[in-house]
Amino acid sequence: MFEFTCQARCGQARAGTFHTPHGIVETPRFMPVGTLANVKTVTPAQLADTGAQMILANTYHLHLQPGEEIVAAAGGLHAFMGWAGPILTDSGGFQVFSLSQMREISDEGVCFRSPRDGQKINLTPERAIAIQGQLGADVIMAFDECPPYPASREQVSRATKRTLQWLDRCIQAQTRPDQALFGIVQGGVYPDLRQACAEAMVPLDLPGYAIGGVSVGEPPELIPEIVRITAPILPETKPRYLMGVGTFPEMLEAIAAGIDLFDCVIPTRLGRHGCAMVQGERWNLKNARFKTDPAPLDATCSCYTCRTFSRAYLSHLVRSQELLAYTLLSIHNITELVGFSQRARAAILNQTFAEFKADCLAHWPPRKSDLSITAESITV
Amino acid sequence: MFEFTCQARCGQARAGTFHTPHGIVETPRFMPVGTLANVKTVTPAQLADTGAQMILANTYHLHLQPGEEIVAAAGGLHAFMGWAGPILTDSGGFQVFSLSQMREISDEGVCFRSPRDGQKINLTPERAIAIQGQLGADVIMAFDECPPYPASREQVSRATKRTLQWLDRCIQAQTRPDQALFGIVQGGVYPDLRQACAEAMVPLDLPGYAIGGVSVGEPPELIPEIVRITAPILPETKPRYLMGVGTFPEMLEAIAAGIDLFDCVIPTRLGRHGCAMVQGERWNLKNARFKTDPAPLDATCSCYTCRTFSRAYLSHLVRSQELLAYTLLSIHNITELVGFSQRARAAILNQTFAEFKADCLAHWPPRKSDLSITAESITV
Repeated sequence: MFEFTCQARCGQARAGTFHTPHGIVETPRFMPVGTLANVKTVTPAQLADTGAQMILANTYHLHLQPGEEIVAAAGGLHAFMGWAGPILTDSGGFQVFSLSQMREISDEGVCFRSPRDGQKINLTPERAIAIQGQLGADVIMAFDECPPYPASREQVSRATKRTLQWLDRCIQAQTRPDQALFGIVQGGVYPDLRQACAEAMVPLDLPGYAIGGVSVGEPPELIPEIVRITAPILPETKPRYLMGVGTFPEMLEAIAAGIDLFDCVIPTRLGRHGCAMVQGERWNLKNARFKTDPAPLDATCSCYTCRTFSRAYLSHLVRSQELLAYTLLSIHNITELVGFSQRARAAILNQTFAEFKADCLAHWPPRKSDLSITAESITV
Repeated sequence: MFEFTCQARCGQARAGTFHTPHGIVETPRFMPVGTLANVKTVTPAQLADTGAQMILANTYHLHLQPGEEIVAAAGGLHAFMGWAGPILTDSGGFQVFSLSQMREISDEGVCFRSPRDGQKINLTPERAIAIQGQLGADVIMAFDECPPYPASREQVSRATKRTLQWLDRCIQAQTRPDQALFGIVQGGVYPDLRQACAEAMVPLDLPGYAIGGVSVGEPPELIPEIVRITAPILPETKPRYLMGVGTFPEMLEAIAAGIDLFDCVIPTRLGRHGCAMVQGERWNLKNARFKTDPAPLDATCSCYTCRTFSRAYLSHLVRSQELLAYTLLSIHNITELVGFSQRARAAILNQTFAEFKADCLAHWPPRKSDLSITAESITV
């Protein structure tokens, strides 16, 4: 049911198909994030039009609101949110560690206060799998301990061991044969810990593997390093998912190292800030140069926004703080990221990935630090 | 070019077709409002799917942002906002009188302070027509003086006289043969002033006539009174537009009195407050009864929202303050109002309007005062 087929390779880069109960995912593929059972400001019909195949939803957020019972009563996430394609839920681990207050971690699990009403919530491997069972996604993630950056070697080593112990409990707890459980490799920025964690997971023969604990504040140049060490250890015959990464340079290097799946909130988050992702650049539509610009955001883009509207119009909507701006920019930004993964896939299938990669690197603007948009400044 | 053809009548009620350079409007028809060259939270593609034919845009708002020159440079409103169907712009008169600060009215026109930068802006009949010429809508409205409610007979009489003088100047100022200039009947709640104003406009043989100065705070039961007095005076062969009215009872009575066109911000404004318009009721989706309700908003509605999502899902989005909620509710609410005007039209064509009207009145809930949503509480 969860077969992964490698269709072509260029070096370590690979193009494949991943079968799920709700359809096939053609890899490499960027997956948009629908935290609260919706990709912010975008309808499922608009989302399908971007080329997205598998999308994410967040277990932590959905447990708090509306609660997994309500999603289950509606027939699961697919029916609830009107998305007929594949869905992946994370385990809630990352959010518990990054967002929640007053958490206590033990070998048993994590106890934290609900940000809604202050009530104590226990999240354990068993509970995370049970909640994801009720949510009903095609791919579910193991409950892991995601150490922050920076963290000492000892701290990360402890978290990695616990992640492996918790993974065993997740496997035991899983009951639905129509859900694929992916393990998450931790190990921070320590190559030997990454290696040990990945090697320990391979014998478990899971239907897929993720690299977690990146994009947590470490210098971005460390991400390709971590991926290059970890990816080759993971089984050839299973999909590999790099969690939380959605910037072009990191995706490109990761695809080159054999990664198949990506997710990131960046396209919708930038959209809600009036920013467009265009050919590797980020444009603030409030900029005066767009006020009278009759061109579409990207003349080579086939998305609804680029087919229909000028930069001048989008600039007007952003200046007017019209909510429609955020929808139109999110549609474009998602299309841009999905399209990038589609072009990489096409290059691998055509055996031209090396040229594709060189071309990208030659044409991208020099890397600047991100716009001042952080997880803390926006309601996720 | 702006021919109005009456296809069927039931008493004073009529079904017709109004030809414009951008297509035919089948009347009676509700027109959604796209104040700043967008119907808030709804794309043009979604808007077309609601059954909307002609939409509005506001001259006052577009003059302030982005300015008519930018719209003209983009090829006019249709190209700028991506709406290929008919568009109507108001003259800015209503907004100058209802929204602006420190205005001075003279026979020449109105001087007011820009709410953006405090700069003095003069709006005269000539200027209002010139701006609308640059915006390029199919139907443009005369610049009128809209007296408040309550206002003394003398005050309203003066405003009505000025409206007639300004209409003459609007006619003189108009240059584009591809735009139809509608006159606006004023006269407040004074039957003889309404009658005199309408009678003075008939000989001008305009391509259409509007009834303005309603929905300005007067008791709602006065609106049908004003319409019943004014509509029969207006030429049979021209479309009649009741400005700012979008509640079912008032639309029903107005259609019965021979009105063809309506507009109101209520469907999108309620949508942005998490409220759905369903069969004459207004529902706050935050209400506990919707939390687990698997039904669509309205099982008889064919809109995208009702085809795709449950009340439980919409309730979840509203509780989560997800912007997608406002899009989905706006799509439904517009469909509901346009659909109501379409059903009235079908009844007139079938010679069953009397039964339709009786059926509506029998099934509507007892009239309650509006939800506490006022123009002041929301950014228009």
